[in-house]
Amino acid sequence: MDDRVREHAEVLIEWSARIEPGDDVIVSVAEGAHDLAVAVAERLGEIGATPLVTYGSDEVTRAYLNAHDGEFEVAAGELALFENADAYLRLGGGRNTAATADVDTDTRQAYARARTEVREARMATDWVSTVHPTRSLAQQAGMAYEEYQNFVYDAILCDWEALAETMANVKSKLDGGETLRIVTERDDGPNTDLTLSIADRTAVNSAASVAYDSHNLPSGEVFTAPYDTEGQVFFDVPMTIDGRRVQGVRLVFENGEVTEFDARQGEAAIESVLDTDAGARRLGELGLGMNRNIDRFTDNILFDEKMGDTVHLALGRAYGATLPEGESGNESAVHVDLISDLSESSRIELDGETIQRNGRFWFEAGFESDGSST
Amino acid sequence: MDDRVREHAEVLIEWSARIEPGDDVIVSVAEGAHDLAVAVAERLGEIGATPLVTYGSDEVTRAYLNAHDGEFEVAAGELALFENADAYLRLGGGRNTAATADVDTDTRQAYARARTEVREARMATDWVSTVHPTRSLAQQAGMAYEEYQNFVYDAILCDWEALAETMANVKSKLDGGETLRIVTERDDGPNTDLTLSIADRTAVNSAASVAYDSHNLPSGEVFTAPYDTEGQVFFDVPMTIDGRRVQGVRLVFENGEVTEFDARQGEAAIESVLDTDAGARRLGELGLGMNRNIDRFTDNILFDEKMGDTVHLALGRAYGATLPEGESGNESAVHVDLISDLSESSRIELDGETIQRNGRFWFEAGFESDGSST
Repeated sequence: MDDRVREHAEVLIEWSARIEPGDDVIVSVAEGAHDLAVAVAERLGEIGATPLVTYGSDEVTRAYLNAHDGEFEVAAGELALFENADAYLRLGGGRNTAATADVDTDTRQAYARARTEVREARMATDWVSTVHPTRSLAQQAGMAYEEYQNFVYDAILCDWEALAETMANVKSKLDGGETLRIVTERDDGPNTDLTLSIADRTAVNSAASVAYDSHNLPSGEVFTAPYDTEGQVFFDVPMTIDGRRVQGVRLVFENGEVTEFDARQGEAAIESVLDTDAGARRLGELGLGMNRNIDRFTDNILFDEKMGDTVHLALGRAYGATLPEGESGNESAVHVDLISDLSESSRIELDGETIQRNGRFWFEAGFESDGSST
Repeated sequence: MDDRVREHAEVLIEWSARIEPGDDVIVSVAEGAHDLAVAVAERLGEIGATPLVTYGSDEVTRAYLNAHDGEFEVAAGELALFENADAYLRLGGGRNTAATADVDTDTRQAYARARTEVREARMATDWVSTVHPTRSLAQQAGMAYEEYQNFVYDAILCDWEALAETMANVKSKLDGGETLRIVTERDDGPNTDLTLSIADRTAVNSAASVAYDSHNLPSGEVFTAPYDTEGQVFFDVPMTIDGRRVQGVRLVFENGEVTEFDARQGEAAIESVLDTDAGARRLGELGLGMNRNIDRFTDNILFDEKMGDTVHLALGRAYGATLPEGESGNESAVHVDLISDLSESSRIELDGETIQRNGRFWFEAGFESDGSST
């Protein structure tokens, strides 16, 4: 086994999920993540935690969904399993990223809605989502297998404490602000001019650890839950949603809700997301990508949304950690991220002050103020 | 996908486990059983049952066990999962039948003991154990892959109702009897002369369906829970126990308990089974193999013990279905089957009547009475 697989398991269990002796841990293993599952089991054994290992196979899920009439139920035992767990580790990495491409939209939505309670119980644990590099993901990224392995481990086996320190600057700034504005000024397509309220929200310094309210490995973003969104946003980064290619998505918001949308590719996928429920037409997340170890788009949201010089917005569910005590935030069965590359002809303003220009933050070398800063 | 994989799923779910709409079904998938898992998920979807799919990987288990200090705990959530399930389908078929060969005996026993409650909850469901034919199992059997697939599907996709009718003869006979005697008279090794009490026991007509108290697919045996075992038994069929080769096992019983044992190969494996707990030194099962679609030994207990012309005895746990109301029978953390080929120079007597000679039962053509029959 590649040493890096064991290092990955160690970072996942110790830095990310903070597993302790006696913890009950659900481990979900995708079709291609066997080696990582072995390394994770070994580490959990060393610590004295108790795993239950589930098979997270897209092909199994597809077969079930396509055969079912759509009136889904949730097993009481599955709910109890998640309600009793201390942590949930999702080891992604399948054999075909399009494995569920032919599942009907209504079925998909009905399944997601039926599983709301399980999802909530799972998200109440110290959950962490990661991926084992597979040939399927390498193909999705347009990369050779070994090249992709290097890319993944560079992103995962990095100095998380140092990145957390850098990101703390952005978190403090957002926590003190009220209104964020994202602007692009380009000649080659629709532009973005979007205003979002983040007053009373707490930004998450997402440093790939539950200790930072961060549940992805890799991570490397600062995110919050915006509201009262107004204006237009254009997402130029191509991606795959529910097995379907999506590119060039334009959304127009009025009073916090999507009132107009189109896409250069995969418009139907966006439409089906928006139609899931009322919350799917509102934003649940605004995130600023700050992981510069991720140096290219690989058509995998876990990595793409963390890339430095990007911003992403998610339709659907908000994460509780960003919300004031007692507020539930936007609710939805979905949480679908869309990404804009801000490395050129762009700026982000907070209460009128430019805090980012062309992807560089105010505290980074290369940042040029446009005079709107106070 | 081979049509026979879907037929296997159909027999498993409909004939064997009798899954009904709304049932909560735990499906355990071994490393090599992916295709069968897909077919099973499809069928469960059609029926409207609710699966939870676990990953039954020997390599993951080995990694966990070898890293652990041996003070195992059971997760409350896992127990709740099994207590709430209607059925449990174990889809075996890994990538290396020796995957757990280097797990320490004490660790193995401690793990089995710690999981007693989970095992009992699992066995209180409509559980069925089957295998998907893998290259690893073909190798274990000494067979080419396609040859092995044919062997497996011949054994599984057979006329279970017809076999159940034949086996009913043997069940009735055993239910009416009190003392069974197994005798071999050969020149090439230790012989068997074993007497077992089966009075007040109910034999199970194990026709590969929970409707018959039968939990293996394939099955094809009539079994009961003997006691007061006296004498010597020699198991000539080679097999693998906990990843270790075992052959030529001789056990001597006094007052129902093993007082002497040896083996031509793998004696340590037998010793570690016997040392698990007090119940591991007594028998939990006597089974008569009656599936003549299984025409050779393949070093896989699921098939070998069902082969026509064989008898097997299990050290350890008895199955409740064989016991009088309120009796718990022999209790143990293990249930390890050992097999004798009775096709030559052998007989089985019930209360003095010869009911089988050289593998043929009294109601079968070719049976010759030796005069001891009444």
